[in-house]
Amino acid sequence: MKALVLEKTRSLSLRDIDLPDTLGPRDVRIAIDTVGICGSDVHYYTHGRIGPFVVESPMVLGHEASGTVSEIGAEVTTLKPGDRVCMEPGIPNPDNRATRLGLYNVDPDVTFWATPPIHGCLAPSVVHPEAFTYKLPDTVSFAQGAMIEPLAVGMQAAAKAKIAPGDTALVIGAGPIGILTALAALAGGCARVFISDLEQIKLDIAGQYSGVHPINIASQNLKDRIRTETDGWGLDVIFEASGNPRAYEGIFDMLRPSGAVVLVGMPIAPVPLDIVAAQAREARIETVFRYAHVYDRAIALVASGKIDLDPLVTKTFAFDDAITAFERAAEGRPGDVKLQIKL
Amino acid sequence: MKALVLEKTRSLSLRDIDLPDTLGPRDVRIAIDTVGICGSDVHYYTHGRIGPFVVESPMVLGHEASGTVSEIGAEVTTLKPGDRVCMEPGIPNPDNRATRLGLYNVDPDVTFWATPPIHGCLAPSVVHPEAFTYKLPDTVSFAQGAMIEPLAVGMQAAAKAKIAPGDTALVIGAGPIGILTALAALAGGCARVFISDLEQIKLDIAGQYSGVHPINIASQNLKDRIRTETDGWGLDVIFEASGNPRAYEGIFDMLRPSGAVVLVGMPIAPVPLDIVAAQAREARIETVFRYAHVYDRAIALVASGKIDLDPLVTKTFAFDDAITAFERAAEGRPGDVKLQIKL
Amino acid sequence: MKALVLEKTRSLSLRDIDLPDTLGPRDVRIAIDTVGICGSDVHYYTHGRIGPFVVESPMVLGHEASGTVSEIGAEVTTLKPGDRVCMEPGIPNPDNRATRLGLYNVDPDVTFWATPPIHGCLAPSVVHPEAFTYKLPDTVSFAQGAMIEPLAVGMQAAAKAKIAPGDTALVIGAGPIGILTALAALAGGCARVFISDLEQIKLDIAGQYSGVHPINIASQNLKDRIRTETDGWGLDVIFEASGNPRAYEGIFDMLRPSGAVVLVGMPIAPVPLDIVAAQAREARIETVFRYAHVYDRAIALVASGKIDLDPLVTKTFAFDDAITAFERAAEGRPGDVKLQIKL
Amino acid sequence: MKALVLEKTRSLSLRDIDLPDTLGPRDVRIAIDTVGICGSDVHYYTHGRIGPFVVESPMVLGHEASGTVSEIGAEVTTLKPGDRVCMEPGIPNPDNRATRLGLYNVDPDVTFWATPPIHGCLAPSVVHPEAFTYKLPDTVSFAQGAMIEPLAVGMQAAAKAKIAPGDTALVIGAGPIGILTALAALAGGCARVFISDLEQIKLDIAGQYSGVHPINIASQNLKDRIRTETDGWGLDVIFEASGNPRAYEGIFDMLRPSGAVVLVGMPIAPVPLDIVAAQAREARIETVFRYAHVYDRAIALVASGKIDLDPLVTKTFAFDDAITAFERAAEGRPGDVKLQIKL
Repeated sequence: MKALVLEKTRSLSLRDIDLPDTLGPRDVRIAIDTVGICGSDVHYYTHGRIGPFVVESPMVLGHEASGTVSEIGAEVTTLKPGDRVCMEPGIPNPDNRATRLGLYNVDPDVTFWATPPIHGCLAPSVVHPEAFTYKLPDTVSFAQGAMIEPLAVGMQAAAKAKIAPGDTALVIGAGPIGILTALAALAGGCARVFISDLEQIKLDIAGQYSGVHPINIASQNLKDRIRTETDGWGLDVIFEASGNPRAYEGIFDMLRPSGAVVLVGMPIAPVPLDIVAAQAREARIETVFRYAHVYDRAIALVASGKIDLDPLVTKTFAFDDAITAFERAAEGRPGDVKLQIKL
Repeated sequence: MKALVLEKTRSLSLRDIDLPDTLGPRDVRIAIDTVGICGSDVHYYTHGRIGPFVVESPMVLGHEASGTVSEIGAEVTTLKPGDRVCMEPGIPNPDNRATRLGLYNVDPDVTFWATPPIHGCLAPSVVHPEAFTYKLPDTVSFAQGAMIEPLAVGMQAAAKAKIAPGDTALVIGAGPIGILTALAALAGGCARVFISDLEQIKLDIAGQYSGVHPINIASQNLKDRIRTETDGWGLDVIFEASGNPRAYEGIFDMLRPSGAVVLVGMPIAPVPLDIVAAQAREARIETVFRYAHVYDRAIALVASGKIDLDPLVTKTFAFDDAITAFERAAEGRPGDVKLQIKL
Repeated sequence: MKALVLEKTRSLSLRDIDLPDTLGPRDVRIAIDTVGICGSDVHYYTHGRIGPFVVESPMVLGHEASGTVSEIGAEVTTLKPGDRVCMEPGIPNPDNRATRLGLYNVDPDVTFWATPPIHGCLAPSVVHPEAFTYKLPDTVSFAQGAMIEPLAVGMQAAAKAKIAPGDTALVIGAGPIGILTALAALAGGCARVFISDLEQIKLDIAGQYSGVHPINIASQNLKDRIRTETDGWGLDVIFEASGNPRAYEGIFDMLRPSGAVVLVGMPIAPVPLDIVAAQAREARIETVFRYAHVYDRAIALVASGKIDLDPLVTKTFAFDDAITAFERAAEGRPGDVKLQIKL
Repeated sequence: MKALVLEKTRSLSLRDIDLPDTLGPRDVRIAIDTVGICGSDVHYYTHGRIGPFVVESPMVLGHEASGTVSEIGAEVTTLKPGDRVCMEPGIPNPDNRATRLGLYNVDPDVTFWATPPIHGCLAPSVVHPEAFTYKLPDTVSFAQGAMIEPLAVGMQAAAKAKIAPGDTALVIGAGPIGILTALAALAGGCARVFISDLEQIKLDIAGQYSGVHPINIASQNLKDRIRTETDGWGLDVIFEASGNPRAYEGIFDMLRPSGAVVLVGMPIAPVPLDIVAAQAREARIETVFRYAHVYDRAIALVASGKIDLDPLVTKTFAFDDAITAFERAAEGRPGDVKLQIKL
């Protein structure tokens, strides 16, 4: 089977490779249609590792995927061949304590597509558990289906925030996850979501959405703007989606008493946190790791029209151009929200 | 000052009456612009009482109001003459224990417009505490401002539900409060909100909104429809907004495990509840009494365009036609969502 | 294997019976030491059914058990032969949606000991999944271990109540579950727990515990007493553990604004509920069905000495006297909190 | 009136001073009986300031007090002369937004005893609002009553933790607030509370309490001990009560998935926080600033015997020896949990 293989750092091939192919009784086989390129895919391509996860042998990339069920295992009941689907890339150990509590995303034994040594899904066909394969309604396209994975991170952040209807939020960082977090927060109950960044082109994309208010911190003082916009009261929720340590400077000054800060971005090193400033508002700080139990919710919000993902798919490449797609992704053009590959 | 006075059951006058007029240091005087007619106003008109509250002397009606600040007390800091505002009709005792906990709506000492013996606001001018007077953004009309009060009930219900982003809900009863609860639930994070009623005209009005799905229980089996729509899993939230005891029959059969039922409607007599059916799903039941701390949130959602109130204002009457307006309201035409009076 | 078999209504035998005996890779075999008699065991004995569950063929009784691991499956890692344990009697389907969310108690496919047609554990040996078998610390006796099951119901109720430290609660009904709910509520953060009943002997047993305050409603007006004890403010939490419809009369009058009522008892028929009274306080109503994820917590509270179960074991019978034990249990002596059988 | 006056840094007098003495309609006058010395009192004595709060003119010290009501204002209804009471030292502005939401502790306008320029209560008599004066049951001594203030900090921490019954917690730091937090956590639902420190004498005092398990980090590896005690799963709650930046190193490694870290101690400077480690467990971080709505709950737990404060009062000084008491407090003897002054 021809797949997009990361041979080693900076070396990609589109070549045949043996992939696990056994269809268990509760598995489905899926003909892949669309795969989005995530920053982590690009990072493995350019650096060969992310933290403790090191690419030591050739690995298929890709974990944001949609496709069509082609075959089902003997005990599968909720899916049938021909069903259009998208897939959760992480499979937990069902017997672990965290999984049994419903917290499968923080199960240390999760296996996750395109996280070494697990192969990803940039291949014509994959086998996946029924339990982590979600049917797409007719109104949700394959391109949208392949965006559910990054949207799920935003959904997890919005769920952790415990948004009260009508909240005002700020998302720091207008990268793909920042924008998707803003959309999830709006769909999840916020009346207004501010989003801050230094790159105007990112803010322009985010600003297309009604209810999302961009703030370019190259030209505006963020704290002053927030103070004015909230009549001095502060924000109900701040989502940190930049991973930039500087985002933490004075972050609590923008928060209302008893507000929440949700940490989505992953700073490389420990970040100095002003504990006393957090205490002065009795801030609640929530942290996010991937997602659990939100795929069906994300699909429902896209299907109902509350979240429009189309403006975020910047360009779609043919599978044969997958390496070109990764090269472009590696350029990191600020206006490229999501590049996708169509098989 | 000429006001709409309920003299006694079924007897209204538009006549001069002495109303409290002293402007305290933390009060504002408001020139009333628009007042909506609520079912409770109509009920006092037609029955002279609601439960223990009996109209024993002439009382000005009306509690859903917007207007313009004309004068401010010496210590008022957040409002100024000319500000367009809407008002919360209930004023709690600030020293009571419930109020101090932030639960001012259930403070037994609340005084509430047009709840005997407290006069309402169907008069050219009222004096009101700054703390319960909310500035309207330029994008929110007076007609919308006078709808914030009933919307606030829906907001309280949506807040109590603790909606998770992407939830599916059902609102039972498509009266004004039912429709406003549906809109609050959608804006508050639901992906889909079903609404059920027997009157097609009400459902047609509700069905205008994207994301609201009407179900006419005269022609469809509600449980079957919900089972199909949720793939047999059940609803995350059910809002009971009819006050009809029959709505409680089998209500838990439509709920997902660990789902919530939010009781907004007020049945006249105790209702038989199937406790064991609730337990089988570990249902959480929340109850709503008016609202607290939601006016600013409701205004924010209207201002941001997430809630469109305009389709719900059926007809606007001049103040001189206020009695005609009440007569029509008393007819109870199913297509009349909200009748308003403009001063 | 000789077991206590319910042949049909009112007919018990202590006789050989074939029981499932295959040890799966994640199972353990347990030599049973102690089994408590539950009201449901007695009800099957006296009536042959509970609701839809009908005893149609001989069934071993018993589901409150402790014992010693005698053999472990190939993949078992947390237990070893010789470990003293107690067991959760309900085994969910791990693939069901409720189970995956962590809500395994409301999984409709749960199989539960001594719920027809599933055999119970009143036998010398059982095979059980490791995942639902809990190691007992040295300080927890077998008799206490066999009490963890009914305590778990009280723990689930206490967890659902979301007790804030220092709350005041009332438990209605001083049967075994009522008393265990009182102990769980105290250990779970309440400062004071009142418990009401008509039977003085039950109240005397409950009243042995510091912090539990019995109220005999044969001689005292419950509402008046609660009003006095809470300075007119009301209770933070009311646990309904009697299943008696009369307990619901005026129940909300005793609750503080925004307080919680937790429904543990299972009334046979729907109960008239005063919705408007609940709304006037914005009561939250929680419902309990068995328990999930509380066994380890219950064991920890017993091990730490925060919950003393010993005064609740009224009498222990030898296995050979198991039928005598059931006959006594069927008498329903009010002073019999828990009868146990030691194998 | 003779009071303990901090003239300037390191200079105390017991001398006459004019104090506010007007009894408003909702105030009570209290004859002070006992005042505890808090670390902040000592810090003002030794340093003349805490952060932005600078002692610029003579100020009476003391804010942990109990006494007897001697006179009541015209509108006081819940207290009468002769009532034994303790007092909340912080008085919020009732009109502020935070206060109205019930979050009065984070109201920026709070005035707080012995926080410049507000005088404290180390004087024979004070005037205080009824609303912040709490009646002591007969079973609670004046010495205990004067301990309610520091206990309230622990209560706030325990409430923020949202303890589930049977949780296992760790308190880092066995100073007075650390020990009181441990007691509040135990009373608030924990089965076991570990407490860590370098000073054995502090740990010995904490270890007197059943359920509190001291860990001397001078001789034991904290992480290893926690791993063993929790079978590798981790703690449900960690309370940081030392204010020491080193406590934050690896703190999340000890936490279970989805556990909570509650920040009580106030580090002087920003602390490096390992965000990714927090995310890997989806840690929730709560922060504490004083307390709100917990005095009555703290008193209830002391009155019921669930929290025993007596072992924590190390020594009691006569009012005439108040300066000696402060000199000893300034020594910072590790075995001195609480020094009190009796008037």
